[in-house]
Amino acid sequence: MSILVELDVTECERLLRAAVFGRLALVADGRIEVLPVNYTAHDDAVWVRTSPGTLLDRYADGAQLVLEIDHVDHERGHGWSVVARGHGELVPDEERTTAEHRTAGPPRWVRREDEVWVQLRWEELTGRRVGGGWDVTAGLPVWSIRPGGPTPGRR
Amino acid sequence: MSILVELDVTECERLLRAAVFGRLALVADGRIEVLPVNYTAHDDAVWVRTSPGTLLDRYADGAQLVLEIDHVDHERGHGWSVVARGHGELVPDEERTTAEHRTAGPPRWVRREDEVWVQLRWEELTGRRVGGGWDVTAGLPVWSIRPGGPTPGRR
Repeated sequence: MSILVELDVTECERLLRAAVFGRLALVADGRIEVLPVNYTAHDDAVWVRTSPGTLLDRYADGAQLVLEIDHVDHERGHGWSVVARGHGELVPDEERTTAEHRTAGPPRWVRREDEVWVQLRWEELTGRRVGGGWDVTAGLPVWSIRPGGPTPGRR
Repeated sequence: MSILVELDVTECERLLRAAVFGRLALVADGRIEVLPVNYTAHDDAVWVRTSPGTLLDRYADGAQLVLEIDHVDHERGHGWSVVARGHGELVPDEERTTAEHRTAGPPRWVRREDEVWVQLRWEELTGRRVGGGWDVTAGLPVWSIRPGGPTPGRR
């Protein structure tokens, strides 16, 4: 058995920028909602794509948002979790900067029409891991650039 | 690209009973908290072990609790997520029934002293998946019984 170890901000940020998938938690109409999302990190913000009418579109703007990412190795009994905390901001596509447009968006797994961008500029990064002596980025999907755009693969 | 498909309650329950790891979300002092947890399902409740003084010990009793589990295949671009929703109940070890005591607890990864049990009796199960034509339980860790107790392995 191991002990819980806090991750420092640098390590949290490294993991947040390396990963591509997490869960956004917010409170909507008094209900806690936890939504799986693909995301990308750009500057000090996480970007998530959604479409008009979704929970994120309706409730994320100005709301407390928490993104949780983790990776667990059940066989070895270790893992880590990082939480990015801040407030959501809805950014219409036409208001995104050139740099933001140039950055690859999150993997698009679901066919959808119009796009709304939710930006979570993190105000607090915390994380912890169980156990030590292993590379915390092992097992994370990575981006491999192929013709047609970036494709997630596996380390 | 695929479409989002809602999972029915039966499928949500099957996945919830098959998995062993998820994230508990709750609001504590106005802050949304998302905590990675090992859990077990017994009857119509999820059980999580914690210790005195933790966030769960202090805030879970009577609070709105959401457990989210998911599994994602980044290479194939598909995945699923299930959310169990209800209210937390702190159960002192001596108040657990004989049947509950007989049920194996969640994997214990962290060395801790006293035990507090948090029970989440689900009131609502919802889930969704992206894409079809694959076994949604593939890739889930499974329990293999070995001398010394259950050990999580991999399907």
